[in-house]
Amino acid sequence: MSLDLPDSATVVEMLPRDGFQRLDEFVPTDEKVEIVDRLSATGVDEIEITSFTHPRAVPTLRDADEVAARVERRDGVTYRALVPNRVGMERAIDADVDKVNALVTVSETYSRKNQNMTVEEILGEIEAICELAADHSVEVEAGMGTSFYCPYEGRVPRDRTLDVVDRVVEAGVDEVTLATTMGLANPVQVAETFGAVFERHPDLDAGLHLHDTNGMSLANTLAAMECGVSRFDASVCGLGGGVVLPGEMSGVGNTPTEDLVHMLAAMGVDANADLGRVTDVARDVRDRLELSTASHVLAGGTVEGVLDAVAAGEGND
Amino acid sequence: MSLDLPDSATVVEMLPRDGFQRLDEFVPTDEKVEIVDRLSATGVDEIEITSFTHPRAVPTLRDADEVAARVERRDGVTYRALVPNRVGMERAIDADVDKVNALVTVSETYSRKNQNMTVEEILGEIEAICELAADHSVEVEAGMGTSFYCPYEGRVPRDRTLDVVDRVVEAGVDEVTLATTMGLANPVQVAETFGAVFERHPDLDAGLHLHDTNGMSLANTLAAMECGVSRFDASVCGLGGGVVLPGEMSGVGNTPTEDLVHMLAAMGVDANADLGRVTDVARDVRDRLELSTASHVLAGGTVEGVLDAVAAGEGND
Repeated sequence: MSLDLPDSATVVEMLPRDGFQRLDEFVPTDEKVEIVDRLSATGVDEIEITSFTHPRAVPTLRDADEVAARVERRDGVTYRALVPNRVGMERAIDADVDKVNALVTVSETYSRKNQNMTVEEILGEIEAICELAADHSVEVEAGMGTSFYCPYEGRVPRDRTLDVVDRVVEAGVDEVTLATTMGLANPVQVAETFGAVFERHPDLDAGLHLHDTNGMSLANTLAAMECGVSRFDASVCGLGGGVVLPGEMSGVGNTPTEDLVHMLAAMGVDANADLGRVTDVARDVRDRLELSTASHVLAGGTVEGVLDAVAAGEGND
Repeated sequence: MSLDLPDSATVVEMLPRDGFQRLDEFVPTDEKVEIVDRLSATGVDEIEITSFTHPRAVPTLRDADEVAARVERRDGVTYRALVPNRVGMERAIDADVDKVNALVTVSETYSRKNQNMTVEEILGEIEAICELAADHSVEVEAGMGTSFYCPYEGRVPRDRTLDVVDRVVEAGVDEVTLATTMGLANPVQVAETFGAVFERHPDLDAGLHLHDTNGMSLANTLAAMECGVSRFDASVCGLGGGVVLPGEMSGVGNTPTEDLVHMLAAMGVDANADLGRVTDVARDVRDRLELSTASHVLAGGTVEGVLDAVAAGEGND
């Protein structure tokens, strides 16, 4: 049997926004710019470089305008930024990004707690964002937080998720990304949800934003690909995540880009991101930021890594 | 879209053999027996309780006969033991196990280094084991190490794996288990291999022995299930593994049973193993043996774990 997978996949790098936002410490702007520039040289298709949120809400990304102004714009790479509302959108337009991630959450409780707005209010902002985008040739992606689970409400009913998909499509977004914000989705839920999305919107550009709290994110990637999804958000070292868990899970958030790219490459699915270059950046980021990470690639969990370890007598067979 | 998965799955617990074998220290027999008895109360279908290998080859399992004699035989649970050759098989028969894992490796280099026999010699042993089994009503499973990757030879050609499947089926085994010994298999490779196996042997009871070096083991589980595979070997805490990697990967070996059972339960696939009870045993084993583990369930990566952490203010959303 061969799995029915897309021939190629688009990899979106979330570290500069989802990752840096999550850290307690402010990463100096020079360092952010340098890391984004290194990421854009890995072949990754798209990078979420920052968030145009109010500096008081996310102080670690208070340098959004400067980051956007200073990063190298490499041909073939899409530079995208998160915008929580129309004010953020205006800043994003001034900063000349290619695309914005217009964030909406499906869970009402999460929306109020995280964005201090109702889902209805956020959908109003997305309509305004889409109007501004049309005037300035900026693409809009709706990043749909808590599409599967909410940390307050538990499992999110699929119909709620589908309703929000309908609404953002109506508002005129170019693409939709369902986010496993809690990292708790499972492959059956992912397949059933994307199946229902494509039933209603057969031509929709729908992607999956990956978190890995339950360890099922690569299985979820596979399930999504079997539904025809070919665009995935990940973060080098896995840095990021909607909920940071205590203790041993502290290093687990997003799915490590290197682990995603590793699986795509192993399966023969074309991706522009180069595993070696992504791994080099991931290693550097881990060392600089002194991260604990759940990355399998960084830990040597590749064919080359294992053969090298065994040849060097480090592995104990 | 809904994934085409089996309605139910069989979970085989490998800790008492694959796990205890791997430890540097000898786990006292009393403790082994107690852990096996606790495992058999989790609902797990089958337990590999020990290995009838020469005590000099695997000193940590030198108490195989005593363990087999002392563990409680619970109705509905299959008690199986690894046997490397006909001498081990005779001990297994004396010990009255229900089933044996007749180990063979596909890679010639691995076979010589690990079992000090050629693949051909091992296949001869399996024929002898099957003859003894028939006389004593013991089931035989062929556990096929390095079915996908070898730590010395790299990727194992699929035809080699299929040849060995043919040979063990000819020898008369009741079931075959392909092992991702190196934890480097990917979902496409898994699907293509099982697809080819079932093409040649449509009614074969074929299972998958899971290791997780590359983090793809749950994706591999999904791919295998889509081919019709419904029997999986895992180990609580993930303890075990053909190659123990240095440094950060030291806690990664087999796929944690609790993570496997978690995914099955989340997907609505029936399994007799109870997630709560498996997790309790895993936590206890981790604490007693002071293991570092990559288990997502133990780290709180479940719906209940995350909701509890957030409610307690431990999670940072």
